[in-house]
Amino acid sequence: MQKVYLSRKIYFSAAHRYHNPEWSDQKNKDVFGPCNNPHGRGHNYELEVTIHGAIDEDSGMVMNLTDLDRILRDKIMSQLDHRFLDREVDFFKSRIPTTENIVHYCWLQLESEFRKPNKLFKLKLFENPELFVEYYGQTIDL
Amino acid sequence: MQKVYLSRKIYFSAAHRYHNPEWSDQKNKDVFGPCNNPHGRGHNYELEVTIHGAIDEDSGMVMNLTDLDRILRDKIMSQLDHRFLDREVDFFKSRIPTTENIVHYCWLQLESEFRKPNKLFKLKLFENPELFVEYYGQTIDL
Amino acid sequence: MQKVYLSRKIYFSAAHRYHNPEWSDQKNKDVFGPCNNPHGRGHNYELEVTIHGAIDEDSGMVMNLTDLDRILRDKIMSQLDHRFLDREVDFFKSRIPTTENIVHYCWLQLESEFRKPNKLFKLKLFENPELFVEYYGQTIDL
Amino acid sequence: MQKVYLSRKIYFSAAHRYHNPEWSDQKNKDVFGPCNNPHGRGHNYELEVTIHGAIDEDSGMVMNLTDLDRILRDKIMSQLDHRFLDREVDFFKSRIPTTENIVHYCWLQLESEFRKPNKLFKLKLFENPELFVEYYGQTIDL
Amino acid sequence: MQKVYLSRKIYFSAAHRYHNPEWSDQKNKDVFGPCNNPHGRGHNYELEVTIHGAIDEDSGMVMNLTDLDRILRDKIMSQLDHRFLDREVDFFKSRIPTTENIVHYCWLQLESEFRKPNKLFKLKLFENPELFVEYYGQTIDL
Amino acid sequence: MQKVYLSRKIYFSAAHRYHNPEWSDQKNKDVFGPCNNPHGRGHNYELEVTIHGAIDEDSGMVMNLTDLDRILRDKIMSQLDHRFLDREVDFFKSRIPTTENIVHYCWLQLESEFRKPNKLFKLKLFENPELFVEYYGQTIDL
Repeated sequence: MQKVYLSRKIYFSAAHRYHNPEWSDQKNKDVFGPCNNPHGRGHNYELEVTIHGAIDEDSGMVMNLTDLDRILRDKIMSQLDHRFLDREVDFFKSRIPTTENIVHYCWLQLESEFRKPNKLFKLKLFENPELFVEYYGQTIDL
Repeated sequence: MQKVYLSRKIYFSAAHRYHNPEWSDQKNKDVFGPCNNPHGRGHNYELEVTIHGAIDEDSGMVMNLTDLDRILRDKIMSQLDHRFLDREVDFFKSRIPTTENIVHYCWLQLESEFRKPNKLFKLKLFENPELFVEYYGQTIDL
Repeated sequence: MQKVYLSRKIYFSAAHRYHNPEWSDQKNKDVFGPCNNPHGRGHNYELEVTIHGAIDEDSGMVMNLTDLDRILRDKIMSQLDHRFLDREVDFFKSRIPTTENIVHYCWLQLESEFRKPNKLFKLKLFENPELFVEYYGQTIDL
Repeated sequence: MQKVYLSRKIYFSAAHRYHNPEWSDQKNKDVFGPCNNPHGRGHNYELEVTIHGAIDEDSGMVMNLTDLDRILRDKIMSQLDHRFLDREVDFFKSRIPTTENIVHYCWLQLESEFRKPNKLFKLKLFENPELFVEYYGQTIDL
Repeated sequence: MQKVYLSRKIYFSAAHRYHNPEWSDQKNKDVFGPCNNPHGRGHNYELEVTIHGAIDEDSGMVMNLTDLDRILRDKIMSQLDHRFLDREVDFFKSRIPTTENIVHYCWLQLESEFRKPNKLFKLKLFENPELFVEYYGQTIDL
Repeated sequence: MQKVYLSRKIYFSAAHRYHNPEWSDQKNKDVFGPCNNPHGRGHNYELEVTIHGAIDEDSGMVMNLTDLDRILRDKIMSQLDHRFLDREVDFFKSRIPTTENIVHYCWLQLESEFRKPNKLFKLKLFENPELFVEYYGQTIDL
């Protein structure tokens, strides 16, 4: 059977502040610049979710979009949209809410949601049209 | 001389909360929905600034972009980018920081910055690619 | 009060066939080319709906988006999305479903839906990113 | 020699109906929803065709665009643009014309068209800007 | 009859140099900055051509796209695409090839090409996605 | 540690001429068509630079954007923006300035700029929205 990659884009907006409480105020300002503003700032995020799977011979589909959209609504939109991330989402209470960490959070939310032969393959998160992060669920040895 | 309209797009990101202190908590929630989240939320805004003017015969320009970009940096970017609007910008202490009111604020910041024959003509502010507000400095009689 | 223009984009996809039954088959083919294909063809349409109104001092809004979105769902999406226009929508049984006529249909659907001081101002309909039609509810004398 | 990946985007619009004749009307409606509309519906599709090859030292090119565009016109545009897929294209008479199956069809049309060292590498087909399918000519074991 | 505005986008790429021979080298450098580079530079331009007209009752169209595309090919694309503007196009031998002057040139090329009730209404020329100029054929008194 | 891919988009505009001095004028014209115009032509290029690395636990970042932007300014923008490539950049004096060769040049400029565990992974260069080239630093055996 043909192996295809199916991708869906969703959009959420959220506020955040970059601040490491173990650093001095000066170091926070030096590293994070205006993202360290105590009042926080915000973005419209765009997330592309890619799964791979087989084309079902009867339906011609990898997965019904209705099911995919429900997963994304429950696991991503209802958790992140309209939130102040480091004040309202537990994961970001001990991690800076950078684009890199948000994509990691989304992976943990989604990875067990797809049934064989479908599998979460990639997440691509845009903070703005000129800056984006991709994650395949991989680790790196230093 | 030819009258042309010159437009420049700029981008800023900001957080805000929609909350009218003269209303009950319930009314705030009913009218503003998730925008009333006490922690605030955020957006990437896109602003299109349009001036009209004459093509200068010697330079072929309505206005030097270096000058236009300096005005936009001083009057818009330095005021709104990376801000929590209703906590950090005076104008929004007595007005809800809706897209409609932000575009009004930008007009007041820019309208006296251009010299004859150039004139501020229109502002177009996107909260997201599906929602935008335009303002020509006009009032309406009810 | 400030007069602002508020715009919302929506998307629908539809099929159609361009065919004037009063013309010969050859003339239909000459004028409409591949759009005259008897099986029909389809497009993703993008519609920008612009109203003008006053910024309400209490809410900071011209109109609540929840209300605007409900109108667009009832009057446009439920009528046109997923339709074969000239087979399923009465208006197109006596008119070619061109982009020009679709925008006229949308105007008739929407013009009485807004309450003073709000008013429908403009519709902009994209057949594709390189081709679009705008309508302000105006007529022309020939 | 440098191995580079060259991609070209093309656009076609087509109508289709999702309907499996071996299923009951109710099951077709449950699985395919509005895509099962007997009159069909339509889309503007965007296809990205990616080949890999070597940079020719004399021309600086992987492949002359004139040749690539001719292949895409003959093998894709002339077959799919302005068509009602399941009524006019044989491949879709026994397969649902989903985005997944259309990308499979395009692969079969293109895979033997490129000469060594050039090779078809990937197809990416957008049904709309929020939904796309990628195919690398791979199969999957269930 | 309904008055609608029909717009078509086209794309061309061209090189140019901004240089006023009546100015000193220093003044050219001060005013035009890197655009004064003696070797020239280049852009992908995007031009939106808007005409207004009436919807023809028989065809449902303001104008046949085949005719519109032919005009744009003959009057714009064949003149500007792939050109070094100030070396190859007479109009720019005595005028700086700024975006403002290019849009003026395009207006002169197109204004007499449309037959009643159709009329050229607006040109919108993007030098890049953040900078564009609009022209309605108007003059301004200084 | 999580391995993520971080990408940044930058834009530059440049002019060029495609001309192989070892070929006859006719062969140059046949192969390169209008790109062989002796006066040159130009484009707005868009370059996506992708590095992979680990999410730093303290900062939540793969790399500080300030550092990444400085590298791109020094190694790409200052070399290519506003240039006539084959007249001003040594690399293109012996190579046709095709999109394929420009992406190769950018790789050589950037590959040694990132420190472990960060590494340059991919470059994607758009000549226009319908044509782009990707390079991963690989060679191919013929």
